[in-house]
Amino acid sequence: MPDSRFFATVGPFSLGDLAALSDTALGDGASPERLFAGVAPLDRAELDHISFLDNLKYRAEFRDSRAGACVVRPAHAAGAPEGMALMLTEDPYRAFAAIAVAFHPAPRPPAGIDALARIDPSASVGADCRIEPGAIVGARVTVGARSHIGAYTVIGDGVTIGEDVHVGSHCTLQYCLIGDRVTIHPGARIGQDGFGFALGPAGHLKVPQLGRVIVGDDVEIGANATIDRGAGPDTVIGSGTKIDNLVQIGHNVQLGRGCVVVAQTGLSGSTKAGDMVLFGGQSGMAGHLSIGDGARVAAQSGVFRDIPAGQTVIGSPALPVKEFWRQIAVLSRLAKKKGDQ
Amino acid sequence: MPDSRFFATVGPFSLGDLAALSDTALGDGASPERLFAGVAPLDRAELDHISFLDNLKYRAEFRDSRAGACVVRPAHAAGAPEGMALMLTEDPYRAFAAIAVAFHPAPRPPAGIDALARIDPSASVGADCRIEPGAIVGARVTVGARSHIGAYTVIGDGVTIGEDVHVGSHCTLQYCLIGDRVTIHPGARIGQDGFGFALGPAGHLKVPQLGRVIVGDDVEIGANATIDRGAGPDTVIGSGTKIDNLVQIGHNVQLGRGCVVVAQTGLSGSTKAGDMVLFGGQSGMAGHLSIGDGARVAAQSGVFRDIPAGQTVIGSPALPVKEFWRQIAVLSRLAKKKGDQ
Amino acid sequence: MPDSRFFATVGPFSLGDLAALSDTALGDGASPERLFAGVAPLDRAELDHISFLDNLKYRAEFRDSRAGACVVRPAHAAGAPEGMALMLTEDPYRAFAAIAVAFHPAPRPPAGIDALARIDPSASVGADCRIEPGAIVGARVTVGARSHIGAYTVIGDGVTIGEDVHVGSHCTLQYCLIGDRVTIHPGARIGQDGFGFALGPAGHLKVPQLGRVIVGDDVEIGANATIDRGAGPDTVIGSGTKIDNLVQIGHNVQLGRGCVVVAQTGLSGSTKAGDMVLFGGQSGMAGHLSIGDGARVAAQSGVFRDIPAGQTVIGSPALPVKEFWRQIAVLSRLAKKKGDQ
Repeated sequence: MPDSRFFATVGPFSLGDLAALSDTALGDGASPERLFAGVAPLDRAELDHISFLDNLKYRAEFRDSRAGACVVRPAHAAGAPEGMALMLTEDPYRAFAAIAVAFHPAPRPPAGIDALARIDPSASVGADCRIEPGAIVGARVTVGARSHIGAYTVIGDGVTIGEDVHVGSHCTLQYCLIGDRVTIHPGARIGQDGFGFALGPAGHLKVPQLGRVIVGDDVEIGANATIDRGAGPDTVIGSGTKIDNLVQIGHNVQLGRGCVVVAQTGLSGSTKAGDMVLFGGQSGMAGHLSIGDGARVAAQSGVFRDIPAGQTVIGSPALPVKEFWRQIAVLSRLAKKKGDQ
Repeated sequence: MPDSRFFATVGPFSLGDLAALSDTALGDGASPERLFAGVAPLDRAELDHISFLDNLKYRAEFRDSRAGACVVRPAHAAGAPEGMALMLTEDPYRAFAAIAVAFHPAPRPPAGIDALARIDPSASVGADCRIEPGAIVGARVTVGARSHIGAYTVIGDGVTIGEDVHVGSHCTLQYCLIGDRVTIHPGARIGQDGFGFALGPAGHLKVPQLGRVIVGDDVEIGANATIDRGAGPDTVIGSGTKIDNLVQIGHNVQLGRGCVVVAQTGLSGSTKAGDMVLFGGQSGMAGHLSIGDGARVAAQSGVFRDIPAGQTVIGSPALPVKEFWRQIAVLSRLAKKKGDQ
Repeated sequence: MPDSRFFATVGPFSLGDLAALSDTALGDGASPERLFAGVAPLDRAELDHISFLDNLKYRAEFRDSRAGACVVRPAHAAGAPEGMALMLTEDPYRAFAAIAVAFHPAPRPPAGIDALARIDPSASVGADCRIEPGAIVGARVTVGARSHIGAYTVIGDGVTIGEDVHVGSHCTLQYCLIGDRVTIHPGARIGQDGFGFALGPAGHLKVPQLGRVIVGDDVEIGANATIDRGAGPDTVIGSGTKIDNLVQIGHNVQLGRGCVVVAQTGLSGSTKAGDMVLFGGQSGMAGHLSIGDGARVAAQSGVFRDIPAGQTVIGSPALPVKEFWRQIAVLSRLAKKKGDQ
């Protein structure tokens, strides 16, 4: 069970109610009246816990689990231990998320503007906002209703923040417009100068960075991530896009809707990606590229050419996935032959 | 046009004045009296805007642009649409920067020490500095004239900062000497302990880090970048060097003058680079290397050996660029043959 | 000698005393009564300085050094210049660390809670702690004796911090339990939400992150590093593990005792490593991997498979080290042949 020092737990809930809110079907013999007290991982769950199986790497833990109930795909139901109630769905991770939220609703710290926050008189702060100690809200800033600005976060003049936004502590927001329901984790830096210089032997001349950062709705931006503002065009993060910790996004980058950018990835200036593009961890994109909808970039890949929609690439320089593995196989065979000589 | 919530615009300026300040030559038929209101990217510029063509990837946007004037190399002038005034130069990006600065001079927020800043009585702050709320200036610190210390930035005891320096919010500066006209973006960490341990099965023993970080003039340091202080020697960043976001610089590293270090690059301890070295994004240098003047390290390269002056390397482990591409070509041909069988 | 603006120096000490405290044996002819004033690198040391030779790259500097004494392995003693006193040991870096600490003991800034710190009334702060300006200590937090909380660091409700812990400025600690003698450098983010989403075309649903971060004793965490809390299990950092700057550690990761994680490395969610594992800089681990005790991951490697105990891997995708170099050699030979044609 989650540590009560950090997480509140409500319940218990009946299996039937949990099945309804998670849109799952109960397996044979599962009693909808049975009560459950919380969620737990497969290997630590007890009889009154709900667990889940998504990644098949954990099949053995599933088979040996003492969990009273488990969310699982119908295709994997046969591997369940005897007596475990099954909650069947094709998307167990999503269903589990709904159940976990039911038991552990996200805390809503009380609204209010701390006496040690500094709000410019020309700023507009919506109803029921929470502004923590030391937060600085600059001139002409607008903060939408129910938004939360963490301690010591600095919001530069003119910035606009939507409703139900959560900004962690120690963030810096400048030259940006932020949508609704955005989450920004601690230490993120949004809107600083892009890395634009006219290089030359007599000195590198800074080119004024005159664009903004436009962040859509339902975006998440990870801890210590950095997003530079545009140089003339804007840097744009499409709605629903999720950006992990320590990601770097250069000036003029445009990300479509629902992209996923895993930790430590870097997108160089002026690269444009469509919707639902997946960037694996530590991957890097050169500048001025075009990446089509639904493309997938494997972890650590280095992309130096455009990627058509739907294509998966891997390697540095990145190749279409089949080509990459064929090269790996050929090289491995040659080296083996050599080693055998 | 830049968003007036964030950027001030002055002007208009005549084409002749703009040509003079950007050191460009007007093309045939361009009227020096014609007035312009600002700058804009090729695809969004209107008749009273100046745009520029540098990267030939944007040739089509150039041909179709409605910009009234465009900064361009003489060799590319033939691709201009009819009626566009041309401003000719071999360095269009630099000329454009000068024009953009003319229309949008960098704002100078008012000088003054905020009542919520905390300046140690033994510190010396020069004339016309701006010290923002919550900034902490430690004992015996000196800050040169006209420098700007951002909100909540913490400057440790004994640090020296030159004139016309700009330090963003939330920075940490310790054990360092900073030159003139340096820009440090939010969240940069300068001068913490290097990662020096005597490793061993009974525990890793920290080795005292007794050096400093010496930052020359006209250096730029990106958001959330980290520069460790020396272990005994100093960590040195030469004048004019530009460091991007999330770069890591280990203890005792020495960078020469005018280097460019693109985002997420890491330089391991005691590596020394000459002048005008270019490090592509996400590249990594092993420790104790020597990198010659004007060397170029491609993005994502992993450098494990010294690089002679002027050489370009790529790959991990990095190779001279021709060798690398020859290997890529050979491997690709072999894999194709295999695939054809 | 270290810059007196930043480092205090005590002494002098006799060579005999220094040999005793560093557990080294004096070489032939070295007088235990001779006095020394401090430590310095080989190329800058003078007659009253102690230096050290560990990395053989610096053999020439050793031969030419003016250092009065030098810590060195017996096997390398023959390369010493005439007149240099030798301090012999099989672990010169560790012995040198002990000597450097003797001359330059780490400063202990005075204890006390700054008037501008904000301590929740329900928090418990041990004896002789130092809490700097702007630090926020949340509800029910406990801070052990002699711990130091840096300026503007924010410690969330319920967090536990051990004794003799040093937390730098601008850190964010949430949902975590921190052991004794831990050092956390500025800007580190510990305990934020993991990057856990149920991905889907209708939107990526955040999965509640209900675990903690458990940090053992004697751990070091670098500047601007990020450690996400567990999703249900905990994220665990074993005692004695050292984590460098800008490292990313995903939810549910478990690191054993005495691991070393060099800068900009990323460990994806649910990966488990044993004791004394070494992760080179910019290396990346996929999720859900198992890495055995004493394994070594070379810099920039991309690990997509489990690593057995004691194995060294390199490359992306990573291979056992011999296999990797054999492939490199084969490819190099083929490309050379091609180039010769």
